[in-house]
Amino acid sequence: MLIIGERINGLYKDVARALQAGDKEIIQNLARAQDEGGAGALDINTGPAAVDAEKAIRWLVESVQEVCKLPLVIDSPRLNVLKAGIETCRNRVIINSTTAQQEKLETLLPLAVEHNCALIGLTMDENGIPAESMAKAELGLRIIAACSEAGLNPENLFLDPLILPVKVTQNQVKETLEAIRLFKTLSSPAPQVLIGLSNVSQGTQNRSLINRTYLVMAMSSGLDAAILDPLDKELMDAVYTAEILLDQKIYCDSYLPEK
Amino acid sequence: MLIIGERINGLYKDVARALQAGDKEIIQNLARAQDEGGAGALDINTGPAAVDAEKAIRWLVESVQEVCKLPLVIDSPRLNVLKAGIETCRNRVIINSTTAQQEKLETLLPLAVEHNCALIGLTMDENGIPAESMAKAELGLRIIAACSEAGLNPENLFLDPLILPVKVTQNQVKETLEAIRLFKTLSSPAPQVLIGLSNVSQGTQNRSLINRTYLVMAMSSGLDAAILDPLDKELMDAVYTAEILLDQKIYCDSYLPEK
Repeated sequence: MLIIGERINGLYKDVARALQAGDKEIIQNLARAQDEGGAGALDINTGPAAVDAEKAIRWLVESVQEVCKLPLVIDSPRLNVLKAGIETCRNRVIINSTTAQQEKLETLLPLAVEHNCALIGLTMDENGIPAESMAKAELGLRIIAACSEAGLNPENLFLDPLILPVKVTQNQVKETLEAIRLFKTLSSPAPQVLIGLSNVSQGTQNRSLINRTYLVMAMSSGLDAAILDPLDKELMDAVYTAEILLDQKIYCDSYLPEK
Repeated sequence: MLIIGERINGLYKDVARALQAGDKEIIQNLARAQDEGGAGALDINTGPAAVDAEKAIRWLVESVQEVCKLPLVIDSPRLNVLKAGIETCRNRVIINSTTAQQEKLETLLPLAVEHNCALIGLTMDENGIPAESMAKAELGLRIIAACSEAGLNPENLFLDPLILPVKVTQNQVKETLEAIRLFKTLSSPAPQVLIGLSNVSQGTQNRSLINRTYLVMAMSSGLDAAILDPLDKELMDAVYTAEILLDQKIYCDSYLPEK
Protein backbone atom coordinates (compact mmCIF):
# COMPACT_ATOMS: atom_id res chain seq x y z
CA MET A 1 0.00 0.00 0.00
CA LEU A 2 1.18 3.46 -0.91
CA ILE A 3 0.34 5.73 2.01
CA ILE A 4 0.06 9.39 1.00
CA GLY A 5 0.28 11.68 4.03
CA GLU A 6 -2.60 14.18 4.09
CA ARG A 7 -1.35 16.49 6.82
CA ILE A 8 0.30 19.26 4.76
CA ASN A 9 -2.97 20.88 3.80
CA GLY A 10 -4.05 24.45 4.54
CA LEU A 11 -7.33 23.11 5.90
CA TYR A 12 -5.38 22.01 8.99
CA LYS A 13 -4.99 24.91 11.41
CA ASP A 14 -1.28 24.32 12.08
CA VAL A 15 -0.52 24.41 8.34
CA ALA A 16 -2.66 27.53 7.81
CA ARG A 17 -0.75 29.21 10.63
CA ALA A 18 2.61 28.11 9.17
CA LEU A 19 1.62 29.48 5.75
CA GLN A 20 0.59 32.81 7.23
CA ALA A 21 3.70 33.17 9.40
CA GLY A 22 6.13 31.69 6.87
CA ASP A 23 7.13 29.18 9.56
CA LYS A 24 9.04 26.44 7.73
CA GLU A 25 9.64 24.38 10.84
CA ILE A 26 5.99 23.39 11.29
CA ILE A 27 5.85 22.14 7.69
CA GLN A 28 9.18 20.33 7.89
CA ASN A 29 8.22 18.65 11.18
CA LEU A 30 5.01 17.42 9.57
CA ALA A 31 6.96 16.11 6.57
CA ARG A 32 9.45 14.25 8.79
CA ALA A 33 6.77 12.87 11.12
CA GLN A 34 4.67 11.51 8.24
CA ASP A 35 7.76 10.01 6.59
CA GLU A 36 8.68 8.24 9.84
CA GLY A 37 5.01 7.29 10.36
CA GLY A 38 5.02 5.19 7.19
CA ALA A 39 4.09 7.60 4.37
CA GLY A 40 5.42 6.75 0.91
CA ALA A 41 4.39 10.14 -0.54
CA LEU A 42 3.09 13.47 0.80
CA ASP A 43 0.05 15.42 -0.36
CA ILE A 44 0.73 19.15 -0.63
CA ASN A 45 -2.30 21.47 -0.64
CA THR A 46 -2.34 25.17 0.24
CA GLY A 47 -6.02 25.08 1.20
CA PRO A 48 -8.56 27.57 -0.14
CA ALA A 49 -7.47 30.46 2.11
CA ALA A 50 -4.01 31.18 0.67
CA VAL A 51 -3.90 34.69 -0.83
CA ASP A 52 -1.21 33.94 -3.41
CA ALA A 53 -1.65 30.19 -3.91
CA GLU A 54 1.17 29.87 -6.50
CA LYS A 55 3.64 31.39 -4.09
CA ALA A 56 2.25 29.33 -1.23
CA ILE A 57 2.59 25.98 -3.01
CA ARG A 58 6.15 26.83 -4.12
CA TRP A 59 7.06 27.61 -0.54
CA LEU A 60 5.46 24.41 0.75
CA VAL A 61 7.22 22.24 -1.85
CA GLU A 62 10.59 23.89 -1.20
CA SER A 63 10.23 23.58 2.55
CA VAL A 64 9.35 19.89 2.32
CA GLN A 65 12.09 19.05 -0.19
CA GLU A 66 14.74 20.44 2.13
CA VAL A 67 14.05 17.63 4.59
CA CYS A 68 12.44 14.77 2.70
CA LYS A 69 12.86 12.85 -0.55
CA LEU A 70 9.36 11.34 -0.77
CA PRO A 71 7.30 11.81 -3.95
CA LEU A 72 4.93 14.78 -3.66
CA VAL A 73 1.27 14.84 -4.57
CA ILE A 74 0.57 18.33 -5.87
CA ASP A 75 -3.04 18.97 -4.93
CA SER A 76 -5.07 21.90 -6.21
CA PRO A 77 -8.25 22.51 -8.23
CA ARG A 78 -6.40 25.32 -10.09
CA LEU A 79 -4.14 24.71 -13.09
CA ASN A 80 -1.75 27.58 -12.39
CA VAL A 81 -1.18 26.31 -8.85
CA LEU A 82 -0.56 22.76 -10.07
CA LYS A 83 1.95 24.09 -12.60
CA ALA A 84 3.76 26.19 -10.01
CA GLY A 85 3.97 23.16 -7.69
CA ILE A 86 5.17 20.76 -10.38
CA GLU A 87 7.85 23.17 -11.61
CA THR A 88 9.22 23.52 -8.09
CA CYS A 89 9.48 19.75 -7.53
CA ARG A 90 12.73 17.83 -7.75
CA ASN A 91 11.04 14.80 -6.13
CA ARG A 92 8.75 12.55 -8.16
CA VAL A 93 5.29 14.13 -8.67
CA ILE A 94 1.72 12.81 -8.61
CA ILE A 95 -0.79 15.37 -9.92
CA ASN A 96 -4.01 15.61 -7.88
CA SER A 97 -6.21 15.58 -9.97
CA THR A 98 -8.13 15.34 -13.23
CA THR A 99 -11.76 14.24 -13.62
CA ALA A 100 -13.37 12.45 -16.58
CA GLN A 101 -14.41 15.80 -18.08
CA GLN A 102 -13.04 16.33 -21.58
CA GLU A 103 -11.51 19.77 -20.96
CA LYS A 104 -9.85 18.61 -17.74
CA LEU A 105 -8.34 15.56 -19.49
CA GLU A 106 -7.15 17.72 -22.40
CA THR A 107 -5.33 20.05 -20.03
CA LEU A 108 -3.95 17.71 -17.36
CA LEU A 109 -2.86 14.72 -19.43
CA PRO A 110 -0.35 16.66 -21.56
CA LEU A 111 0.93 18.29 -18.35
CA ALA A 112 1.48 14.87 -16.74
CA VAL A 113 3.18 13.47 -19.85
CA GLU A 114 5.39 16.54 -20.30
CA HIS A 115 6.66 16.43 -16.71
CA ASN A 116 6.68 12.62 -16.48
CA CYS A 117 4.26 12.69 -13.54
CA ALA A 118 1.69 10.20 -12.29
CA LEU A 119 -1.90 11.45 -12.26
CA ILE A 120 -4.95 10.96 -10.04
CA GLY A 121 -8.21 10.62 -12.02
CA LEU A 122 -11.46 11.22 -10.12
CA THR A 123 -14.37 9.22 -11.54
CA MET A 124 -16.75 12.18 -11.82
CA ASP A 125 -17.74 14.45 -14.69
CA GLU A 126 -19.95 17.46 -15.47
CA ASN A 127 -22.95 15.47 -14.14
CA GLY A 128 -21.32 14.97 -10.76
CA ILE A 129 -20.32 11.80 -8.91
CA PRO A 130 -22.29 8.77 -10.10
CA ALA A 131 -23.93 6.65 -7.39
CA GLU A 132 -23.40 3.21 -8.89
CA SER A 133 -20.19 1.24 -9.21
CA MET A 134 -20.80 0.45 -12.89
CA ALA A 135 -21.19 4.14 -13.72
CA LYS A 136 -18.00 4.90 -11.77
CA ALA A 137 -16.22 2.20 -13.81
CA GLU A 138 -17.53 3.72 -17.05
CA LEU A 139 -15.92 7.05 -16.15
CA GLY A 140 -12.76 5.19 -15.13
CA LEU A 141 -12.63 3.61 -18.55
CA ARG A 142 -13.04 7.04 -20.19
CA ILE A 143 -10.03 8.29 -18.20
CA ILE A 144 -7.97 5.18 -19.08
CA ALA A 145 -8.77 5.61 -22.79
CA ALA A 146 -7.67 9.26 -22.65
CA CYS A 147 -4.43 8.26 -20.90
CA SER A 148 -3.68 5.68 -23.54
CA GLU A 149 -4.24 8.27 -26.28
CA ALA A 150 -2.04 10.82 -24.53
CA GLY A 151 0.75 8.29 -23.85
CA LEU A 152 0.37 7.98 -20.08
CA ASN A 153 0.95 4.39 -18.89
CA PRO A 154 -2.02 3.04 -16.85
CA GLU A 155 0.44 2.16 -14.08
CA ASN A 156 0.99 5.92 -13.69
CA LEU A 157 -2.73 6.50 -13.33
CA PHE A 158 -4.48 6.41 -9.95
CA LEU A 159 -8.25 6.10 -10.30
CA ASP A 160 -10.20 7.51 -7.34
CA PRO A 161 -13.86 6.39 -6.94
CA LEU A 162 -14.54 9.32 -4.55
CA ILE A 163 -15.97 8.16 -1.23
CA LEU A 164 -18.77 10.26 0.17
CA PRO A 165 -19.42 10.62 3.91
CA VAL A 166 -21.21 7.58 5.40
CA LYS A 167 -23.29 10.04 7.40
CA VAL A 168 -24.68 11.61 4.21
CA THR A 169 -25.01 8.80 1.63
CA GLN A 170 -24.69 5.54 3.50
CA ASN A 171 -25.47 3.21 0.58
CA GLN A 172 -22.72 4.68 -1.63
CA VAL A 173 -19.98 3.44 0.67
CA LYS A 174 -20.56 -0.14 -0.47
CA GLU A 175 -20.79 0.90 -4.14
CA THR A 176 -17.34 2.42 -3.78
CA LEU A 177 -15.90 -0.90 -2.58
CA GLU A 178 -17.40 -2.60 -5.62
CA ALA A 179 -15.98 0.19 -7.82
CA ILE A 180 -12.46 -0.49 -6.48
CA ARG A 181 -12.86 -4.15 -7.53
CA LEU A 182 -14.14 -3.13 -10.97
CA PHE A 183 -11.39 -0.55 -11.57
CA LYS A 184 -8.74 -3.28 -11.23
CA THR A 185 -10.33 -5.13 -14.18
CA LEU A 186 -10.51 -2.18 -16.57
CA SER A 187 -7.13 -2.52 -18.26
CA SER A 188 -4.03 -4.65 -18.40
CA PRO A 189 -1.81 -3.62 -16.72
CA ALA A 190 -4.50 -2.43 -14.29
CA PRO A 191 -4.62 1.17 -13.13
CA GLN A 192 -3.69 1.91 -9.53
CA VAL A 193 -6.72 2.57 -7.33
CA LEU A 194 -6.60 5.30 -4.70
CA ILE A 195 -9.00 6.81 -2.17
CA GLY A 196 -8.99 10.00 -0.13
CA LEU A 197 -9.92 8.19 3.05
CA SER A 198 -11.01 10.77 5.58
CA ASN A 199 -14.04 11.93 3.62
CA VAL A 200 -15.88 8.76 4.63
CA SER A 201 -15.98 9.86 8.28
CA GLN A 202 -16.82 13.58 7.79
CA GLY A 203 -19.07 14.82 10.59
CA THR A 204 -19.04 11.58 12.61
CA GLN A 205 -18.09 11.07 16.24
CA ASN A 206 -15.76 8.09 15.69
CA ARG A 207 -13.64 9.32 12.81
CA SER A 208 -10.53 7.23 13.37
CA LEU A 209 -12.54 4.02 13.90
CA ILE A 210 -14.64 4.60 10.78
CA ASN A 211 -11.55 5.50 8.75
CA ARG A 212 -9.61 2.39 9.67
CA THR A 213 -12.59 0.05 9.27
CA TYR A 214 -13.29 1.41 5.81
CA LEU A 215 -9.63 1.31 4.79
CA VAL A 216 -9.37 -2.39 5.67
CA MET A 217 -12.44 -3.11 3.52
CA ALA A 218 -11.04 -1.07 0.63
CA MET A 219 -7.67 -2.85 0.90
CA SER A 220 -9.37 -6.23 0.71
CA SER A 221 -11.20 -4.99 -2.42
CA GLY A 222 -7.85 -4.28 -4.12
CA LEU A 223 -6.91 -0.73 -3.11
CA ASP A 224 -3.33 0.33 -3.96
CA ALA A 225 -3.02 3.77 -2.34
CA ALA A 226 -4.75 6.07 0.11
CA ILE A 227 -4.46 9.68 1.15
CA LEU A 228 -4.73 9.59 4.94
CA ASP A 229 -3.16 10.70 8.21
CA PRO A 230 -0.12 8.47 8.88
CA LEU A 231 0.17 10.06 12.34
CA ASP A 232 -2.96 8.08 13.34
CA LYS A 233 -1.20 5.06 14.89
CA GLU A 234 -4.30 2.86 15.09
CA LEU A 235 -4.96 3.49 11.41
CA MET A 236 -1.39 2.55 10.48
CA ASP A 237 -1.58 -0.59 12.67
CA ALA A 238 -4.67 -1.58 10.67
CA VAL A 239 -2.75 -0.98 7.42
CA TYR A 240 0.17 -3.21 8.47
CA THR A 241 -2.20 -5.93 9.69
CA ALA A 242 -4.27 -5.85 6.50
CA GLU A 243 -1.07 -6.09 4.42
CA ILE A 244 -0.12 -9.22 6.37
CA LEU A 245 -3.56 -10.80 6.04
CA LEU A 246 -3.67 -10.05 2.29
CA ASP A 247 -0.24 -11.68 1.90
CA GLN A 248 1.35 -8.44 0.65
CA LYS A 249 4.01 -8.43 3.40
CA ILE A 250 5.63 -11.43 5.03
CA TYR A 251 4.30 -12.25 8.50
CA CYS A 252 6.65 -12.18 11.45
CA ASP A 253 5.70 -11.95 15.12
CA SER A 254 7.04 -8.40 15.36
CA TYR A 255 5.44 -7.13 12.14
CA LEU A 256 4.22 -3.97 13.87
CA PRO A 257 6.80 -1.19 14.28
CA GLU A 258 7.79 -0.67 17.90
CA LYS A 259 6.02 2.20 19.62
CA MET B 1 -24.16 -10.16 11.54
CA LEU B 2 -24.92 -13.04 13.83
CA ILE B 3 -22.32 -12.98 16.62
CA ILE B 4 -21.84 -16.38 18.25
CA GLY B 5 -20.11 -16.05 21.62
CA GLU B 6 -17.12 -18.42 21.87
CA ARG B 7 -16.42 -18.11 25.60
CA ILE B 8 -18.28 -21.14 26.97
CA ASN B 9 -15.62 -23.62 25.88
CA GLY B 10 -13.65 -25.96 28.09
CA LEU B 11 -10.45 -24.74 26.42
CA TYR B 12 -10.83 -21.55 28.47
CA LYS B 13 -9.41 -22.03 31.95
CA ASP B 14 -12.36 -20.43 33.77
CA VAL B 15 -14.81 -22.77 32.01
CA ALA B 16 -12.62 -25.83 32.67
CA ARG B 17 -12.54 -24.85 36.34
CA ALA B 18 -16.33 -24.34 36.44
CA LEU B 19 -16.88 -27.75 34.83
CA GLN B 20 -14.63 -29.43 37.37
CA ALA B 21 -16.14 -27.68 40.38
CA GLY B 22 -19.75 -27.75 39.11
CA ASP B 23 -19.77 -23.95 39.54
CA LYS B 24 -22.85 -22.75 37.61
CA GLU B 25 -22.25 -19.09 38.40
CA ILE B 26 -19.11 -18.82 36.25
CA ILE B 27 -20.99 -20.24 33.26
CA GLN B 28 -24.09 -18.14 33.82
CA ASN B 29 -22.02 -14.96 34.18
CA LEU B 30 -20.30 -15.73 30.88
CA ALA B 31 -23.67 -16.33 29.23
CA ARG B 32 -25.09 -13.03 30.52
CA ALA B 33 -21.96 -11.04 29.69
CA GLN B 34 -21.83 -12.33 26.11
CA ASP B 35 -25.56 -11.69 25.66
CA GLU B 36 -25.11 -8.08 26.87
CA GLY B 37 -21.93 -7.76 24.77
CA GLY B 38 -23.90 -8.29 21.55
CA ALA B 39 -23.99 -12.07 21.01
CA GLY B 40 -26.97 -13.44 19.08
CA ALA B 41 -26.13 -17.06 19.94
CA LEU B 42 -23.71 -18.91 22.25
CA ASP B 43 -21.30 -21.70 21.36
CA ILE B 44 -21.27 -24.48 23.98
CA ASN B 45 -18.24 -26.78 23.99
CA THR B 46 -17.03 -28.93 26.88
CA GLY B 47 -13.47 -28.98 25.59
CA PRO B 48 -11.47 -32.20 25.21
CA ALA B 49 -10.71 -32.62 28.94
CA ALA B 50 -14.22 -33.41 30.24
CA VAL B 51 -14.33 -36.94 31.72
CA ASP B 52 -18.03 -37.52 31.00
CA ALA B 53 -18.66 -35.19 28.05
CA GLU B 54 -22.37 -36.07 27.71
CA LYS B 55 -23.02 -35.14 31.30
CA ALA B 56 -20.84 -32.03 30.95
CA ILE B 57 -22.68 -30.68 27.92
CA ARG B 58 -26.07 -31.31 29.54
CA TRP B 59 -24.97 -29.38 32.58
CA LEU B 60 -23.59 -26.50 30.47
CA VAL B 61 -26.78 -26.25 28.40
CA GLU B 62 -29.02 -26.37 31.50
CA SER B 63 -26.94 -23.77 33.31
CA VAL B 64 -27.05 -21.39 30.34
CA GLN B 65 -30.76 -21.86 29.66
CA GLU B 66 -31.61 -20.84 33.22
CA VAL B 67 -30.39 -17.31 32.50
CA CYS B 68 -30.49 -16.77 28.74
CA LYS B 69 -32.82 -17.38 25.81
CA LEU B 70 -30.25 -17.12 23.00
CA PRO B 71 -29.93 -19.94 20.44
CA LEU B 72 -27.19 -22.40 21.39
CA VAL B 73 -24.49 -23.75 19.12
CA ILE B 74 -23.84 -27.31 20.30
CA ASP B 75 -20.20 -27.87 19.50
CA SER B 76 -18.50 -31.27 19.65
CA PRO B 77 -16.67 -33.66 17.34
CA ARG B 78 -18.58 -36.57 18.97
CA LEU B 79 -22.07 -37.61 17.92
CA ASN B 80 -23.20 -38.79 21.35
CA VAL B 81 -22.21 -35.44 22.87
CA LEU B 82 -24.04 -33.51 20.15
CA LYS B 83 -27.15 -35.63 20.75
CA ALA B 84 -27.01 -35.12 24.51
CA GLY B 85 -26.66 -31.34 24.01
CA ILE B 86 -29.47 -31.11 21.46
CA GLU B 87 -31.88 -33.14 23.60
CA THR B 88 -31.26 -30.85 26.57
CA CYS B 89 -31.96 -27.66 24.56
CA ARG B 90 -35.22 -25.74 24.78
CA ASN B 91 -33.59 -22.81 22.93
CA ARG B 92 -33.07 -22.92 19.17
CA VAL B 93 -30.05 -25.08 18.21
CA ILE B 94 -27.26 -24.81 15.66
CA ILE B 95 -25.24 -28.04 15.34
CA ASN B 96 -21.46 -27.53 15.13
CA SER B 97 -20.60 -29.30 12.81
CA THR B 98 -20.61 -31.60 9.81
CA THR B 99 -17.91 -31.78 7.11
CA ALA B 100 -18.34 -32.71 3.45
CA GLN B 101 -17.52 -36.37 4.23
CA GLN B 102 -20.28 -38.74 3.19
CA GLU B 103 -20.59 -40.55 6.52
CA LYS B 104 -20.68 -37.28 8.46
CA LEU B 105 -23.41 -35.89 6.21
CA GLU B 106 -25.41 -39.11 6.47
CA THR B 107 -25.35 -38.93 10.27
CA LEU B 108 -25.70 -35.23 10.97
CA LEU B 109 -28.23 -34.13 8.34
CA PRO B 110 -31.01 -36.46 9.59
CA LEU B 111 -30.22 -35.31 13.15
CA ALA B 112 -30.58 -31.64 12.12
CA VAL B 113 -33.81 -32.29 10.22
CA GLU B 114 -35.32 -34.40 13.02
CA HIS B 115 -34.68 -31.74 15.67
CA ASN B 116 -35.33 -28.78 13.36
CA CYS B 117 -31.83 -27.40 13.94
CA ALA B 118 -29.54 -25.29 11.81
CA LEU B 119 -26.22 -26.89 10.88
CA ILE B 120 -22.63 -25.69 10.37
CA GLY B 121 -20.89 -27.37 7.42
CA LEU B 122 -17.08 -27.23 7.35
CA THR B 123 -15.68 -27.26 3.81
CA MET B 124 -13.22 -30.08 4.40
CA ASP B 125 -13.32 -33.81 3.73
CA GLU B 126 -11.21 -36.97 4.15
CA ASN B 127 -8.43 -35.23 2.18
CA GLY B 128 -8.25 -32.35 4.63
CA ILE B 129 -8.84 -28.61 4.15
CA PRO B 130 -8.33 -27.56 0.52
CA ALA B 131 -6.06 -24.58 -0.05
CA GLU B 132 -7.92 -22.91 -2.93
CA SER B 133 -11.20 -21.05 -2.84
CA MET B 134 -12.64 -22.98 -5.79
CA ALA B 135 -11.95 -26.31 -4.07
CA LYS B 136 -13.57 -24.96 -0.89
CA ALA B 137 -16.61 -23.96 -2.96
CA GLU B 138 -16.78 -27.43 -4.52
CA LEU B 139 -17.03 -28.97 -1.04
CA GLY B 140 -19.62 -26.31 -0.13
CA LEU B 141 -21.70 -27.36 -3.09
CA ARG B 142 -21.47 -31.00 -2.03
CA ILE B 143 -22.82 -30.05 1.41
CA ILE B 144 -25.62 -27.93 -0.11
CA ALA B 145 -26.65 -30.82 -2.39
CA ALA B 146 -26.78 -33.18 0.58
CA CYS B 147 -28.89 -30.65 2.55
CA SER B 148 -31.31 -30.33 -0.32
CA GLU B 149 -31.68 -34.11 -0.51
CA ALA B 150 -32.18 -34.42 3.24
CA GLY B 151 -34.73 -31.58 3.33
CA LEU B 152 -32.62 -28.97 5.15
CA ASN B 153 -33.27 -25.45 3.82
CA PRO B 154 -30.01 -23.73 2.69
CA GLU B 155 -30.95 -20.81 4.94
CA ASN B 156 -30.46 -23.19 7.88
CA LEU B 157 -27.00 -24.12 6.65
CA PHE B 158 -23.89 -22.21 7.71
CA LEU B 159 -20.91 -22.94 5.48
CA ASP B 160 -17.54 -22.45 7.19
CA PRO B 161 -14.45 -22.09 4.91
CA LEU B 162 -12.12 -22.82 7.89
CA ILE B 163 -9.54 -20.11 8.38
CA LEU B 164 -6.05 -21.29 9.19
CA PRO B 165 -3.61 -19.25 11.30
CA VAL B 166 -1.98 -16.41 9.34
CA LYS B 167 1.26 -17.33 11.10
CA VAL B 168 1.21 -20.84 9.57
CA THR B 169 -0.31 -20.51 6.08
CA GLN B 170 -0.32 -16.85 5.21
CA ASN B 171 -1.56 -17.17 1.61
CA GLN B 172 -4.66 -19.15 2.61
CA VAL B 173 -6.14 -16.19 4.47
CA LYS B 174 -6.92 -14.43 1.19
CA GLU B 175 -8.30 -17.63 -0.38
CA THR B 176 -10.75 -17.82 2.49
CA LEU B 177 -12.04 -14.31 1.72
CA GLU B 178 -12.61 -15.34 -1.88
CA ALA B 179 -14.32 -18.53 -0.66
CA ILE B 180 -16.80 -16.46 1.38
CA ARG B 181 -17.70 -14.54 -1.79
CA LEU B 182 -18.08 -17.78 -3.78
CA PHE B 183 -20.20 -19.52 -1.10
CA LYS B 184 -22.83 -16.76 -1.38
CA THR B 185 -23.28 -17.63 -5.08
CA LEU B 186 -23.69 -21.41 -4.66
CA SER B 187 -27.46 -21.57 -4.22
CA SER B 188 -30.60 -19.47 -4.17
CA PRO B 189 -31.44 -18.70 -1.44
CA ALA B 190 -27.75 -18.53 -0.57
CA PRO B 191 -26.34 -20.45 2.39
CA GLN B 192 -25.26 -18.45 5.41
CA VAL B 193 -21.49 -18.12 5.67
CA LEU B 194 -19.76 -18.39 9.04
CA ILE B 195 -16.18 -18.34 10.33
CA GLY B 196 -14.58 -19.35 13.59
CA LEU B 197 -12.60 -16.14 13.84
CA SER B 198 -9.93 -16.60 16.47
CA ASN B 199 -8.07 -19.36 14.61
CA VAL B 200 -6.64 -16.71 12.24
CA SER B 201 -4.56 -15.18 15.04
CA GLN B 202 -3.35 -18.39 16.76
CA GLY B 203 0.16 -17.93 18.10
CA THR B 204 0.49 -14.24 17.19
CA GLN B 205 1.36 -11.32 19.46
CA ASN B 206 -1.49 -9.04 18.33
CA ARG B 207 -4.46 -11.38 18.47
CA SER B 208 -7.25 -8.86 18.96
CA LEU B 209 -5.93 -6.56 16.20
CA ILE B 210 -5.53 -9.44 13.73
CA ASN B 211 -8.98 -10.80 14.64
CA ARG B 212 -10.79 -7.52 14.10
CA THR B 213 -8.92 -6.66 10.91
CA TYR B 214 -9.73 -10.04 9.41
CA LEU B 215 -13.36 -9.90 10.53
CA VAL B 216 -13.89 -6.57 8.77
CA MET B 217 -12.48 -8.04 5.55
CA ALA B 218 -14.67 -11.14 5.86
CA MET B 219 -17.75 -8.98 6.50
CA SER B 220 -17.07 -6.95 3.38
CA SER B 221 -16.80 -10.27 1.46
CA GLY B 222 -20.34 -11.22 2.54
CA LEU B 223 -19.92 -13.00 5.91
CA ASP B 224 -23.17 -13.62 7.84
CA ALA B 225 -21.97 -15.04 11.16
CA ALA B 226 -18.83 -15.47 13.24
CA ILE B 227 -17.87 -17.40 16.34
CA LEU B 228 -15.82 -14.92 18.36
CA ASP B 229 -15.34 -13.31 21.74
CA PRO B 230 -18.04 -10.62 22.18
CA LEU B 231 -16.30 -9.48 25.37
CA ASP B 232 -13.54 -8.01 23.16
CA LYS B 233 -14.88 -4.44 22.96
CA GLU B 234 -12.59 -3.30 20.15
CA LEU B 235 -13.70 -6.28 18.08
CA MET B 236 -17.36 -5.48 18.67
CA ASP B 237 -16.77 -1.79 17.82
CA ALA B 238 -15.30 -2.98 14.51
CA VAL B 239 -18.40 -5.15 13.92
CA TYR B 240 -20.82 -2.25 14.51
CA THR B 241 -18.75 0.06 12.30
CA ALA B 242 -18.54 -2.49 9.49
CA GLU B 243 -22.31 -3.02 9.67
CA ILE B 244 -22.81 0.73 9.25
CA LEU B 245 -20.34 0.99 6.34
CA LEU B 246 -21.92 -2.00 4.59
CA ASP B 247 -25.36 -0.38 4.97
CA GLN B 248 -26.67 -3.25 7.11
CA LYS B 249 -27.59 -0.95 10.02
CA ILE B 250 -28.79 2.63 9.81
CA TYR B 251 -26.11 5.23 10.66
CA CYS B 252 -26.67 7.55 13.58
CA ASP B 253 -24.04 9.58 15.43
CA SER B 254 -24.36 7.39 18.52
CA TYR B 255 -24.30 4.05 16.69
CA LEU B 256 -21.78 2.62 19.15
CA PRO B 257 -23.22 1.39 22.47
CA GLU B 258 -22.19 3.59 25.40
CA LYS B 259 -19.27 2.26 27.43
